[in-house]
Amino acid sequence: MWDHDDSLAWTVLAAAPGLDADRIAGAIALLGSPAAVARGPATAWERAGMPAITCEFLRSAAAVPGRAVRRWLADEHHHVLPYCDPRFPQLLRALPQCPVALYVSGHLNALADPQLAIVGSRNPTAQGRETAFDFAEYFAERGLGITSGLAEGIDGSAHRGALRGQGITIAVLGTGIDLIYPASNAALHREICHTGALISEFPLGTPPRRGNFPQRNRLIAGLTLGTLVVEAAPRSGSLITARLANALGREVFAIPGSIHNPLSRGCHELIKDGGKLVDSGDDILRELNFSAFFSNEIPAKSGPISAPPRVPGMDKEHKILLDALGFDPMDLDTLIVRTGFKPEAVSSMVLILELEGHVQAAPGGRYSRVANRRAGGER
Amino acid sequence: MWDHDDSLAWTVLAAAPGLDADRIAGAIALLGSPAAVARGPATAWERAGMPAITCEFLRSAAAVPGRAVRRWLADEHHHVLPYCDPRFPQLLRALPQCPVALYVSGHLNALADPQLAIVGSRNPTAQGRETAFDFAEYFAERGLGITSGLAEGIDGSAHRGALRGQGITIAVLGTGIDLIYPASNAALHREICHTGALISEFPLGTPPRRGNFPQRNRLIAGLTLGTLVVEAAPRSGSLITARLANALGREVFAIPGSIHNPLSRGCHELIKDGGKLVDSGDDILRELNFSAFFSNEIPAKSGPISAPPRVPGMDKEHKILLDALGFDPMDLDTLIVRTGFKPEAVSSMVLILELEGHVQAAPGGRYSRVANRRAGGER
Repeated sequence: MWDHDDSLAWTVLAAAPGLDADRIAGAIALLGSPAAVARGPATAWERAGMPAITCEFLRSAAAVPGRAVRRWLADEHHHVLPYCDPRFPQLLRALPQCPVALYVSGHLNALADPQLAIVGSRNPTAQGRETAFDFAEYFAERGLGITSGLAEGIDGSAHRGALRGQGITIAVLGTGIDLIYPASNAALHREICHTGALISEFPLGTPPRRGNFPQRNRLIAGLTLGTLVVEAAPRSGSLITARLANALGREVFAIPGSIHNPLSRGCHELIKDGGKLVDSGDDILRELNFSAFFSNEIPAKSGPISAPPRVPGMDKEHKILLDALGFDPMDLDTLIVRTGFKPEAVSSMVLILELEGHVQAAPGGRYSRVANRRAGGER
Repeated sequence: MWDHDDSLAWTVLAAAPGLDADRIAGAIALLGSPAAVARGPATAWERAGMPAITCEFLRSAAAVPGRAVRRWLADEHHHVLPYCDPRFPQLLRALPQCPVALYVSGHLNALADPQLAIVGSRNPTAQGRETAFDFAEYFAERGLGITSGLAEGIDGSAHRGALRGQGITIAVLGTGIDLIYPASNAALHREICHTGALISEFPLGTPPRRGNFPQRNRLIAGLTLGTLVVEAAPRSGSLITARLANALGREVFAIPGSIHNPLSRGCHELIKDGGKLVDSGDDILRELNFSAFFSNEIPAKSGPISAPPRVPGMDKEHKILLDALGFDPMDLDTLIVRTGFKPEAVSSMVLILELEGHVQAAPGGRYSRVANRRAGGER
């Protein structure tokens, strides 16, 4: 059957109510494998302290992987990526209530690259579309990946700009990963799958439901170093993504516009609330201390999926921060005091150094240096 | 001759190098009158401790008021207003290096009204002009006067909008008050003189000199509760006005625009540096705690020069602040601690309460309540 197929087991565990990463980790430690946890028997679930609602689900027909998911998994570009896989996005794993597993179509290594979210209205102005495209292209060329929601409008333009810049782009879906929604984005869907990745945390076949989009937006905010809103009406989904980013301690950026453009109102609202006004791509690279890739020259590309070659060495501020950080875990407040840098700068530098493998996260929001890195972390 | 004409004496003292308000106050206390100070004799100047450079000027032909200034003063709408006159703008008198005297054409009581500066490019877009006009009209209708520099472009539109709103507008000139510059603004010049006021701190006949405009900009910033920049190129004079306003502790506001409009760049720069993004007039009224006049209904006008009738009573925050303030002078830091309000809010509330006569400034940047006010300050 499917006893030894971890991917199938993870689709079951991800769909089970009442489970989170911590509880699953405990159950796996006790029962030996995700498949063993998903399979049972009921006495094992009880031993692992599973809630009744979880046991009920795992006992039901809904917990038997159907033909659709087996067929989907047969494609080599399709993956179920559990939270405990080293390729699971680090920024996402740091979240409270991190998803148990992600469905991924495309290239798993795309998830390792630093990402900026670009989101906005489904019905933008022509200017808004162009801005999203141009900014995405600019960042992608410099090695900063673009994450968006594959919606019409700003989302689609952002993905297309990143593809034009031959960079990484990640589409986060509010539906099952096997559905293409909206249908108008079918070609874009294929292209992203070919060179980047599509992600969903919903079971296969999940239709577009209004209630799923806030959860999709949380994933966009959680996967990225910051969220850039290009054009958005007040009280729109894009603003929710931005506010989630803010709540997660990520940067919020907004493009200003004419006070007579109703779709600039949302962006202006964000700026009034402390989001950073952005009128050039460099504003964002500077704010993120995006040193490792940041260079005035566009680096040569080595292929559509691999990131451009790293600029050798790292910038001065990153070195200062790394020098201030020891091999014993240290909290960010201490690091802020030691370096004298602004809290936002320290947060984003640590995130980048973590993505680059120079720094690792420790429990309690602390960080330590990583020893013996190939990338020269031991200067 | 002119011994007993204080206005003429003030024109001489205002032009004399090496004098400031403090030194003049001392000399008047010693010698009896501004005319006595201006006239001398030299032994009296020495007794009053005047610097050599001042004595040299006062002794020269340049210190004898000519026919031009006598003729100018003969007009009943023309005034020389010394810093010690109770009608001298209070916000200006609080500045370090406050002007010794202002030349005023028009209505002296216009200077008593709370003002917002609206400034910007001499070559704005059509949209920029319209925005300046509309905002100025909106504020003027609500009793907030508009101060600007009578330049072409945004300045002119701001003055015209205030006139359309039947409110107060003040033009601050970088030339002698008897010159009309640019000539294209002659009609506007007349209209402002008729319903508001023109101000200059330069001697009659001073031509437009590049070097005088920063000083003019300082006067604009110093006269007002805040400065709104509508469209401005980076490194333009409008940004200098805004930065002066910031340095004086006044509010800085900027209108955002398309990232493709070069004249929005200056505004975006200000917002990045902490200036407040404004996309509606209410943003500013709220930020200034412009309670005394602020009302959703446009108050009835009683005439072109007099302010709209005050909304009875004052808002809650003003009452809290006034209650926290005693009749003994208190510094703003104490007031901030006592009220728990933000420093910017306390500053602007104190300014407004001062303009309304509920609060008076004391030496050392302190403030106290005013007793027995007709306006009900003693609730």
